[in-house]
Amino acid sequence: MAIENPYYGHEFHGDYDLISIGEFALEEGGVIPDLHLAVATFGTLNAAGDNAILVTTWYSGTHQIFRDVYIGPDRALNPDKYFIVVVNQIGNGLSTSPHNASGANAKIAMSQFPKVRIGDDVRAQEQLLREHFGIETLQLVVGGSMGAQQTYEWMVRFPGKAKRAAPIAGTAQNTPHDFLYTKALIEAITSDPGFKDGEYSSNADVVDGLKRHAGIWAVMGFSTEFWKQELWRALEFESKEQFIEGFLEPYFTQMDPNDLLCMAWKWQRGDVARHTDGDLEAALGRNTAVARILPINEDMFFPVRDHEAELELTPHATIRVIDDLLGHLALFGIAPTYIGQIDHHLQELLDTES
Amino acid sequence: MAIENPYYGHEFHGDYDLISIGEFALEEGGVIPDLHLAVATFGTLNAAGDNAILVTTWYSGTHQIFRDVYIGPDRALNPDKYFIVVVNQIGNGLSTSPHNASGANAKIAMSQFPKVRIGDDVRAQEQLLREHFGIETLQLVVGGSMGAQQTYEWMVRFPGKAKRAAPIAGTAQNTPHDFLYTKALIEAITSDPGFKDGEYSSNADVVDGLKRHAGIWAVMGFSTEFWKQELWRALEFESKEQFIEGFLEPYFTQMDPNDLLCMAWKWQRGDVARHTDGDLEAALGRNTAVARILPINEDMFFPVRDHEAELELTPHATIRVIDDLLGHLALFGIAPTYIGQIDHHLQELLDTES
Repeated sequence: MAIENPYYGHEFHGDYDLISIGEFALEEGGVIPDLHLAVATFGTLNAAGDNAILVTTWYSGTHQIFRDVYIGPDRALNPDKYFIVVVNQIGNGLSTSPHNASGANAKIAMSQFPKVRIGDDVRAQEQLLREHFGIETLQLVVGGSMGAQQTYEWMVRFPGKAKRAAPIAGTAQNTPHDFLYTKALIEAITSDPGFKDGEYSSNADVVDGLKRHAGIWAVMGFSTEFWKQELWRALEFESKEQFIEGFLEPYFTQMDPNDLLCMAWKWQRGDVARHTDGDLEAALGRNTAVARILPINEDMFFPVRDHEAELELTPHATIRVIDDLLGHLALFGIAPTYIGQIDHHLQELLDTES
Repeated sequence: MAIENPYYGHEFHGDYDLISIGEFALEEGGVIPDLHLAVATFGTLNAAGDNAILVTTWYSGTHQIFRDVYIGPDRALNPDKYFIVVVNQIGNGLSTSPHNASGANAKIAMSQFPKVRIGDDVRAQEQLLREHFGIETLQLVVGGSMGAQQTYEWMVRFPGKAKRAAPIAGTAQNTPHDFLYTKALIEAITSDPGFKDGEYSSNADVVDGLKRHAGIWAVMGFSTEFWKQELWRALEFESKEQFIEGFLEPYFTQMDPNDLLCMAWKWQRGDVARHTDGDLEAALGRNTAVARILPINEDMFFPVRDHEAELELTPHATIRVIDDLLGHLALFGIAPTYIGQIDHHLQELLDTES
C-alpha cells in the first residue's frame, strides 16, 4: 500500500504536472498499469515544435535542481529561447514510484514495484514528448549522472531524434566499480531492520539505514580535497559533522527507501550495449547527435578516464572536463565556478550546427 | 568475556611470540593490565645490536603478510643482514585485543576494551625493543597504511631512534575523508543486530555486518581500474562476485568485529600533530630519519597528493610513487610488479648513509 511522504509534493518541488502515458510495459517484464511522469516545463514550444530540450534527472534528484541551478534566462538552458522539459525519472518519488503507487497502480506499491531500466525511462520520455507535446526532435538532451545514462540511451536508441547530447558525469555503460558502490548504498538501506523487506510504514522507520547511506555518499560523492579544504564552509556550516547532520543526512532521510532502491537498481544496470549484444562500440557507433561529454575532474565513481574510454567509441563527440573540487556532487552547483563551466560548454554545443 | 576465534592463532599465523610488557597506561586514560605483543622476528640481532628493522602492521593485517611478501633473502628486508621485528598492533587479534582479553585482562574484554591510540602502539614497540631485545636504535621503521601512521609517529615521537623511515600508503595526520571512510566501515559492523553492542558470542553472529564492511572495502580498497580491467583474474577467480565471495568476504568475516573496531577508532585519529598542539609542520619538523614516502598512485583514500602535502613539511624526506592499479590494497602484493618497486625503494633507502 502506498504511503505518505510530504517531501514528494508541490510544497517542496513547486510546479510540475503529473502526466499519464497509460499502461507501460517494462523491459524486465513488469508492467506499470498507469505510468505518471512528473514533468516540469520552462519556456514555450514554438510553432514548428523544434525548439525543445529534454532534461533527465539523477539518482535522488528531481526537476527542482535544474529549475534552481541550471535553467534561466542567463543560462545556456534559456527558457526565453527553448522549450525545456524536465522529466522526473520513474521511481524518483514524483513520477510513479514504489511509495506513491496507488489507484490503478496499487498492486505495485512498495516491495511489489517492478524492476525498471534506464531504457524504460527513455522510451517513456520519447512517448511523452511525442504524444503529449507533439515533439518529434530535440535540440538537446542533457542530464547528469543517471541523467547521463539516460542521455546516452537516447543517443543509441533513437539516433536522429536528438540533434545534440550532453552527458554530464555519467557513462553509457555502468562500470563494475560503480555497481559495487551502488551495492554498498543499497545494503546500507536494506540492512536496517526497520526496512522490513520494503514494507515499512514510514521512511522514518528506516532513518538509520538512510543515514548510513548518506555516510557512504559522504565518502564517494565528494572528493578527498572537498573534505580536506573544508569546502562545506561555503554552505555556512562550522564542522564536517554539522554539514553531514545538517545537509547530507536530511537530504536523504526525507526520501523514500524503496524509491531510492528502485533508482539504484536501475543505475547499476545502465548499459547501452544491451542494444548490440554487449558490443559497446557498435552501440555508441549508432550516435548521430553532436555530443559534449562533460566529466568532473574530481569525480570518485564516474572518473574522467571512464568517460574518455567511451569518447573514443562515440562518433560526433568531444570531451570537456569540468573543474570542481566537490567531485561528483559538483552537480549540485554549490561551487560558484561550476555553472559557468556548464553554461559555457552547453552554449558552445547549442551554437554548433548539427 | 573473551571469545574463541581460531583465525588468531599459530595455525593461521605460523610462528610468533607473545611477549608481555606488563601493565600499560593508554593515552586516552585506559589501562591494559598486562599488555602482550605478538612479535615475529626474522634474522639475528648482531652483537652491537644495531642491525634491527621494525615493521608495523596495518588495519586487519598481521606479521603474516610481511613474512610471506615483504621479507626474504632476496628482498630489501633481508633477514640474512637485518634483525627484522614485526610487531602486531594492539587490537589486531594477535596482540592483546578485545576478543582475546582474558586472565589479567579479563576486565577489558570485548565492549570493555579501552580506546587505543597510534601513540600507544609506538610507545609499546619502543619499550619492547629496548627492554626485551636491548635495541636502542633502528636502521629502519617501515609499515603500510596504519603501519605508515605508526612509522610517522616514530619519526616525530622518537627523533634519532630510527635512522630511516618508510611510510607506505599512509599519512602522518589522518584526513577528514579518511575519517568518514572509516566511519562507514565502523557503522557497517555496529549496525548489525548480531553485534549486540560488542557483546556477541561469536564473530559469526556479525557475519552480515562484516560482509557489508567487506563490500565497502571493495569500493575504496581497490581502484576503479582494478574492477574495470578485472585484475582479480590474477587470483584465478572468474567473476567479481566470485572474487568478493571467495576472497574479500572470507578475509574479513573470519576476523573479530571488536578487534576491527579497536583498530578503526585508532586509524581515524592518527595524528602526529597531537605532540605540537595541532601544528603539523612543527611535528613533522622533528624528524631526523632519512625518509622515503611511498604512496600508491591509484590509492582512493590515501591519495598521492596527501602524501605530497606532508612531504613538504618533512625534513630529510623524499617521495617515490608506487605504480599499481590495485589501489590501496596493492599492499597485499598481488601484482607481480609491486614488491619489486618496494624493494627498489627500500634498498635505495637502506643504502643511504644516515
